[in-house]
Amino acid sequence: MVDYIGMHDVERLVRLIGTGAFIERLAGEIEGDFRRRDEFEKTPRAASHSPAGVIELMPITDGRVYTFKYVNGHPKNTAAGMLTVTAFGVLADVDSGYPLLLSELTVTTALRTAATSALAARWMAREDSRTMALIGNGAQSEFQAVAFHRMLGVRELRLYDVDPAATDKLERNLLAMQEVAGLAIVRCGDAAQACRGADIVTTVTADKRSAVILTRDMIEPGMHLNAVGGDCPGKTELQRDILLTPNARVVVEYEPQSRIEGEVQQMDASFPVIELADVLRGTVPGRASPDEVTIFDSVGFALEDYSALRFLRTLLVEQRVGRQIDLVPQLRNPKDLFGETVGAHARPVRLRVTA
Amino acid sequence: MVDYIGMHDVERLVRLIGTGAFIERLAGEIEGDFRRRDEFEKTPRAASHSPAGVIELMPITDGRVYTFKYVNGHPKNTAAGMLTVTAFGVLADVDSGYPLLLSELTVTTALRTAATSALAARWMAREDSRTMALIGNGAQSEFQAVAFHRMLGVRELRLYDVDPAATDKLERNLLAMQEVAGLAIVRCGDAAQACRGADIVTTVTADKRSAVILTRDMIEPGMHLNAVGGDCPGKTELQRDILLTPNARVVVEYEPQSRIEGEVQQMDASFPVIELADVLRGTVPGRASPDEVTIFDSVGFALEDYSALRFLRTLLVEQRVGRQIDLVPQLRNPKDLFGETVGAHARPVRLRVTA
Repeated sequence: MVDYIGMHDVERLVRLIGTGAFIERLAGEIEGDFRRRDEFEKTPRAASHSPAGVIELMPITDGRVYTFKYVNGHPKNTAAGMLTVTAFGVLADVDSGYPLLLSELTVTTALRTAATSALAARWMAREDSRTMALIGNGAQSEFQAVAFHRMLGVRELRLYDVDPAATDKLERNLLAMQEVAGLAIVRCGDAAQACRGADIVTTVTADKRSAVILTRDMIEPGMHLNAVGGDCPGKTELQRDILLTPNARVVVEYEPQSRIEGEVQQMDASFPVIELADVLRGTVPGRASPDEVTIFDSVGFALEDYSALRFLRTLLVEQRVGRQIDLVPQLRNPKDLFGETVGAHARPVRLRVTA
Repeated sequence: MVDYIGMHDVERLVRLIGTGAFIERLAGEIEGDFRRRDEFEKTPRAASHSPAGVIELMPITDGRVYTFKYVNGHPKNTAAGMLTVTAFGVLADVDSGYPLLLSELTVTTALRTAATSALAARWMAREDSRTMALIGNGAQSEFQAVAFHRMLGVRELRLYDVDPAATDKLERNLLAMQEVAGLAIVRCGDAAQACRGADIVTTVTADKRSAVILTRDMIEPGMHLNAVGGDCPGKTELQRDILLTPNARVVVEYEPQSRIEGEVQQMDASFPVIELADVLRGTVPGRASPDEVTIFDSVGFALEDYSALRFLRTLLVEQRVGRQIDLVPQLRNPKDLFGETVGAHARPVRLRVTA
């Protein structure tokens, strides 16, 4: 039997321990896995493109545990009342090759993305950061709000979205959450207003094109930019000039992938970037001075999904939640696949047998 | 919700329509898909190797439907009472990227492999073939027996395995099957004896090395060889000389893959092979004369898994069988991932909101 975490189970798990605690514990797992990143073998993702979108398989292994994630990206889905991105994943035992856990990853990806953002910000934002601009108030925004409230101590959120209904929704969801009680919410008329006085600026917009959500003039010395929405070729959020700010420090999850998918796709190959693993290992500082502009150029990395799937498996045991599915056979005699499955209940008949 | 076919469901489906009928209908689907093979885009499989075995993801799409299969190969598993190979797969809608069906593929792969073998033999074996040697009596053998009985009219099986317990098991399973009533079974002392007088020779051994299951002297003019067990680099079953038999015709599923994984990995790149798609389209004959030795060098191809997953989905509707799992969210407002999942039942609290 294979452990199974569906929508029902992930919702139950998150409610049992709290969204903020889930994100914070997951961030700890991600941190540990990034520090030992060299133990991982990342097979290239298998991407299948169509006019409507992309379907990708993202496998990764550390030689003991293997995971892969199925994820699609279909911007037009929203118009049909469907999600742009859905995902699920599998965790398997490398030694036997058996799948051990199948889990939803649509909600879990939002949780791990927020966890990674807050983890990076802990090492990159100024310690006295209390105010965050949150630009793009869609599906990922609540997760970012909770993560930064919990892990960075953010006390004021400055919201902006081109669609006021998105901000309405975010505000409504935050108002309903005990966990973020006391968080001040300021609705802003544009991105510039949202940035004003912010210590951290998080961009999580959904437009699939080279957008300019932030321009150079909105950026103040000492700001930390958490650029989450620019995450595939042709999809960016920051004006190129921001990356060229003197004293700017750009951290990425995995350089070869980020140069294709991240904000740094706008720069040539010699543009300096720092890998998050080096920051988390203490090799390179995440911030060298209070005046630096720090930029976490996040695209999402298979390692984070690995951490999330392993964490879910830990939670299953700890919280005694989750179900099992009969995705693989359990045989008394592994050589008798037929006789113990489809042939199991056949009635005996007479055949002619010759020695 | 995503349709789900677990072990329970696949067993029920096969019993509802019969193993032979399942295989024959699936062979029809595979035939149709091979004929339109040029419509498919086969992304390279993502393979992750470890000392214990391999885990592979095999995606394929025709632009409307996308499928992938997860499959492992761990020869040492048998000793621990586990299967060498387990598999599962997903069928998704290319237009939305949503997964539509998750299915077990361990049993289904055995069914599709047998279906492909019998399909190829229909075009390659002599029409008057009634006797088949079945060498290697492990997990795949019953499926081959049923397929050739049903689709080729094989009336006598000549069994051999290095492990007599495997032949005991195969015999027991065949004896219990109404569907193959009347099939004569002859147990043989070695492969040469099994081949004697056989019209078709099927090899489905499991040894993960370059084995010589069949040698040149066992082969008679007019025989059809269905070589199933040589299916990965370093794993072959036929003596090289057999492939060099004058008047031998070798058919493969997909040339680039078979040159690496099939029996023809023993030959250099100029060795002539014919693709099954060309035989099924009638472009090249599967057999040109009654004296030819025809060889179907089968390795398993992602297209066959695609056909199998789509066929299972058809059967789900037809037989009103199968379950559903909550692997992806269903939202009223796709932009409100948080509020309709983990945030759904949070209690409203008071926050400070500023305009």
